[in-house]
Amino acid sequence: MTKLSVAIVGASGYAGGEFLRLALGHPMLNVTQVTSERNAGTPVTFVHPNLRGRSNLKFIKASQLQACDVVVLALPHGHAAKRIAEFEGFAPIIVDLSADFRIKDLDAYRKHYGEDHPAPNQLSAWVYGNPELHREELRGATRIAGAGCFATSVILALYPLLKLGVPLPKDIVATGLVGSSAGGKDPTEGSHHPERDGSLRVYKATGHRHLAEVEQELPGRFPIHLTAIASPRVRGILATASVFIPDGYSERDVWGAYREVYGDEPFIRIVKVRQGIHRYPDPKLLDGTNFCDIGFETDQESGRVVVMSAIDNLVKGTAGHALQSLNIAQGWDETLGLEFVGLHP
Amino acid sequence: MTKLSVAIVGASGYAGGEFLRLALGHPMLNVTQVTSERNAGTPVTFVHPNLRGRSNLKFIKASQLQACDVVVLALPHGHAAKRIAEFEGFAPIIVDLSADFRIKDLDAYRKHYGEDHPAPNQLSAWVYGNPELHREELRGATRIAGAGCFATSVILALYPLLKLGVPLPKDIVATGLVGSSAGGKDPTEGSHHPERDGSLRVYKATGHRHLAEVEQELPGRFPIHLTAIASPRVRGILATASVFIPDGYSERDVWGAYREVYGDEPFIRIVKVRQGIHRYPDPKLLDGTNFCDIGFETDQESGRVVVMSAIDNLVKGTAGHALQSLNIAQGWDETLGLEFVGLHP
Amino acid sequence: MTKLSVAIVGASGYAGGEFLRLALGHPMLNVTQVTSERNAGTPVTFVHPNLRGRSNLKFIKASQLQACDVVVLALPHGHAAKRIAEFEGFAPIIVDLSADFRIKDLDAYRKHYGEDHPAPNQLSAWVYGNPELHREELRGATRIAGAGCFATSVILALYPLLKLGVPLPKDIVATGLVGSSAGGKDPTEGSHHPERDGSLRVYKATGHRHLAEVEQELPGRFPIHLTAIASPRVRGILATASVFIPDGYSERDVWGAYREVYGDEPFIRIVKVRQGIHRYPDPKLLDGTNFCDIGFETDQESGRVVVMSAIDNLVKGTAGHALQSLNIAQGWDETLGLEFVGLHP
Amino acid sequence: MTKLSVAIVGASGYAGGEFLRLALGHPMLNVTQVTSERNAGTPVTFVHPNLRGRSNLKFIKASQLQACDVVVLALPHGHAAKRIAEFEGFAPIIVDLSADFRIKDLDAYRKHYGEDHPAPNQLSAWVYGNPELHREELRGATRIAGAGCFATSVILALYPLLKLGVPLPKDIVATGLVGSSAGGKDPTEGSHHPERDGSLRVYKATGHRHLAEVEQELPGRFPIHLTAIASPRVRGILATASVFIPDGYSERDVWGAYREVYGDEPFIRIVKVRQGIHRYPDPKLLDGTNFCDIGFETDQESGRVVVMSAIDNLVKGTAGHALQSLNIAQGWDETLGLEFVGLHP
Repeated sequence: MTKLSVAIVGASGYAGGEFLRLALGHPMLNVTQVTSERNAGTPVTFVHPNLRGRSNLKFIKASQLQACDVVVLALPHGHAAKRIAEFEGFAPIIVDLSADFRIKDLDAYRKHYGEDHPAPNQLSAWVYGNPELHREELRGATRIAGAGCFATSVILALYPLLKLGVPLPKDIVATGLVGSSAGGKDPTEGSHHPERDGSLRVYKATGHRHLAEVEQELPGRFPIHLTAIASPRVRGILATASVFIPDGYSERDVWGAYREVYGDEPFIRIVKVRQGIHRYPDPKLLDGTNFCDIGFETDQESGRVVVMSAIDNLVKGTAGHALQSLNIAQGWDETLGLEFVGLHP
Repeated sequence: MTKLSVAIVGASGYAGGEFLRLALGHPMLNVTQVTSERNAGTPVTFVHPNLRGRSNLKFIKASQLQACDVVVLALPHGHAAKRIAEFEGFAPIIVDLSADFRIKDLDAYRKHYGEDHPAPNQLSAWVYGNPELHREELRGATRIAGAGCFATSVILALYPLLKLGVPLPKDIVATGLVGSSAGGKDPTEGSHHPERDGSLRVYKATGHRHLAEVEQELPGRFPIHLTAIASPRVRGILATASVFIPDGYSERDVWGAYREVYGDEPFIRIVKVRQGIHRYPDPKLLDGTNFCDIGFETDQESGRVVVMSAIDNLVKGTAGHALQSLNIAQGWDETLGLEFVGLHP
Repeated sequence: MTKLSVAIVGASGYAGGEFLRLALGHPMLNVTQVTSERNAGTPVTFVHPNLRGRSNLKFIKASQLQACDVVVLALPHGHAAKRIAEFEGFAPIIVDLSADFRIKDLDAYRKHYGEDHPAPNQLSAWVYGNPELHREELRGATRIAGAGCFATSVILALYPLLKLGVPLPKDIVATGLVGSSAGGKDPTEGSHHPERDGSLRVYKATGHRHLAEVEQELPGRFPIHLTAIASPRVRGILATASVFIPDGYSERDVWGAYREVYGDEPFIRIVKVRQGIHRYPDPKLLDGTNFCDIGFETDQESGRVVVMSAIDNLVKGTAGHALQSLNIAQGWDETLGLEFVGLHP
Repeated sequence: MTKLSVAIVGASGYAGGEFLRLALGHPMLNVTQVTSERNAGTPVTFVHPNLRGRSNLKFIKASQLQACDVVVLALPHGHAAKRIAEFEGFAPIIVDLSADFRIKDLDAYRKHYGEDHPAPNQLSAWVYGNPELHREELRGATRIAGAGCFATSVILALYPLLKLGVPLPKDIVATGLVGSSAGGKDPTEGSHHPERDGSLRVYKATGHRHLAEVEQELPGRFPIHLTAIASPRVRGILATASVFIPDGYSERDVWGAYREVYGDEPFIRIVKVRQGIHRYPDPKLLDGTNFCDIGFETDQESGRVVVMSAIDNLVKGTAGHALQSLNIAQGWDETLGLEFVGLHP
């Protein structure tokens, strides 16, 4: 079978670099072009030294792009939408890892991104790249909008309760501990190692942009509030959400909901052992993997359920679910290129 | 002025070692005895190497204790209460760093600690060692029950809203990121470096014992829920609490409440600068200090206020507020021995 | 082609767990038995939670072992040699990850391991599991003695200079920064997170046991001295060795030596870019991979060459080179099961 | 007694900020001016949030400086020397924390700093700010050149062997593990948290500039080679040096040398306990302190002594020894402002 040729635009960043890593191990993809304005002419291994011995690609400028089968866009937010016509000229399939095509509601986009959407007519063509919620729409899709990382961790944590229509009586508060790689590749004062190392720092107490995605994907029936904290890890998100279940619902019902909705998912692992240090999800175990581990604990007295989800923000939170979505779109085995199982310890 | 002689029982642990460190720099205290059953006969510096050059004390067994002015108990939970008569024979003043004398309600104690209180008749003699809430009761006190570390971070975060009677319409959810030193000195599977390093692990999703203290100190009017997460730091707690204020309350009102209640506190710093990476509390800045940094952010749309508090769990969370309480009890300057200002970076 | 059935004895430890992880992804191996005396009856995922969804194996006791094709021994040092006759009854191929069969010289073994070798007659049957030095001997081998991790990092760093007979005029001093997983699975005071986190602690200043392996594999012509430092990482070794080259040798000659000896090695990457932050080896890039990255810098004035090598102590330092050796022994592609490329960042 | 008024030029950096922290706790110093071109007009606590509640100073521009008693220069290398006449107009006492006045030999300066010294006539007025080697010269000094951090760790480790004239037969190789704060305040690609966290990266394999200081202070008799490795810590240096002692020298002789030379030093602690996890120096214990901990281990067979020294690079390596030097210069107690004892754990 012929491999699809892939161009990654913005491949020197962390999202693009991660897609590159995954695609290099994918039996149906052949990465032939990687762009970086700043690094054009240098080997990808100069920026992504993990790929030494695995790839001889050199960065080119976006202006040097040639036609291929798939264009993967890993540009800063706003760039993909503004230049989408240009990129559509190169390939029939486009995967965008930015926020540009995730939000369907123009008002929500404006509210959270501070400007009118640059290409509103395009939006309907794109499928939100969350395989667990949109698998059917993804089949055959040629426009995949990779979901946000924090949004993904929260959406996957709460989706079964919504889908099964559990009538939640109180607001949901979700806290995310987010690794430093989510801030991207450019050094800032906040990412400076002496400042960030060992720091536990709320960086978005209220009003996180990903709330737009959460509200879009989990519409309507219960208010959700997000707080984002910078953790000292490089990769990974641990989300904890406090959900109040109604009287009459038991832990067993909650279990049932998650098993029913996620029982066949290849990348969702429901974690609940009764004892031991690994009885809840931990992003440490997920570095490099496409898993989303989900667990919960119920306090019968108050009806509070603490749902915990863990992902690698660059894989299941960015490049991994985009690739999983592409696998679905192409009718391939969903796990191709995503087999890495993670390390212990 | 004559110094008070101090004996620290259980000085090889982290709480006892921290009290020792602080007391060695205190102008009115003279530590003359330190006990450790396991390390009797060895220098304290064998266990606490930071004290090299500062202390020549050697550990003795508790059975070798002699009379002194102050006994500080740093024993595992349950031990102090069971042996309190014994320790009262040695000194007129007792400071206990365990949970034994914190909870006044016998039912709450039984519920959270799993057994009947060993010395219920003693409880009324003890003052809860939180200077901000109990300063007046602490004056002249001879029985000081050091408060719990996670409890302290939550109580200090929420106290002004309670004290001023703000009618909170919804449940409060508080999440604590807790350093590994809170687990004490004994190695376990969970504290094993290869397992714990880089881990973000919920360890008490619901039902944390410190809820008993929180409910005792912030009685009555709004349900509070706690979740505790093991952070990769050694020291420090970052607590974030989501509080919903009623319609008509503004951020300015919240500011006013915190300023009114904490404006003169020597160890509470209200942190709110409008920009920059240090605009919220961060336990990294507090290692070794007795400060509690408190900040908040208001989402006017939903009425949610995210209150953040940061402490060093071993200082403001354990040994520091106990020493501050002792300073108050003795009528000394409250800051004696607690002057260390913390490091940056 | 029929897969080989594999039993891992001592699979709850880090070395055994890592071999299990690699073997689960190996197309020619089928792990059918894993033993752990302490965890018999529980799923492997209770101990190695990274394998959730990947393996349904349960631990058995060693006494329950049944015949298979390959036995992998991951026991504490000394156990394999004492029980080797027992294990030979189960399978024709044995891979030992301990130190028991690495040292051929009985005096060196006694000096470094403090007792007479328990099975001296066995030693000649075993091949030292370093593919770069012993590839030819490994072909067809049925007894593979996995090399030591620190030894491997030093041997691979220095081997080309020895092999090409460069007459080194001075002693070699090598320092290794070693991750905490090298200390194994059992919690100790030194591995307790509050003590180990952020610590930089020499743990073997002189007389490291792995010197026995280094002297055996790089025999005769220049004295080597080792110092081992505990680094704050969980995985990984960075070795730096100061080697003095004779007058008349240039950096180009050193380059030539490494390229000549390692040019075709699938898992050795000679790292030397002229600039940038990734111009030298870094174990951070190698977590989970079987690579050994090697670089060097020459000071022409003094003739000192600093050779740097980085490995993952559990992969290229333990389970990975053992599997690579087994691949060679069986005539398979050397890289089977070892394809993971590592992460950035 | 009247306090000396102090101006810190370049106080927004890590060295200047650390001098500020120490000076704020010093009974004889009164910091009245702090300059930062970039932050002029903002409170020092915006940059150094640890000082909240401790200092109300605001940054001014250097052009706004007024006369005072002591000017402390914390500028990038090269700036102090070029502008020294300007700064001498403000105060009779100048302390420079940069490399500008450390190197007495103009050729060595040129070789290591890449240009001719900007103020060669000034050099003789400055005393190298290492109290252990230059205490007598420092008495009454009005020009103090703070020593380099890596240089300090190596010089203090080796000085006793030199002072006592031990005839060392072989080259000395010293390796330093250096915290990220040594790289200063400006974010770079190498200091970007996702890149630096968990990294073990040689950054100066050969030819480190501090060799100029080491050779100046330990002149003449044995070649020393330095390698600098970036450690994942923020603060701290652990230096290990391999020294070969001549036949006939015993460990006891080495002990004697260190005790004789350092026995009365207030900030050098000779660390050697026979067992336990704290038997060697560890920079973790020294964060915020002015101690230099020194230990060693002898291999009688090879005559190799591994000398280990640990410091906080910003205190004993920069601001602390400068303040200690100033204390000596002024005839004050050497430990004023430097009493912090360090934390465990």
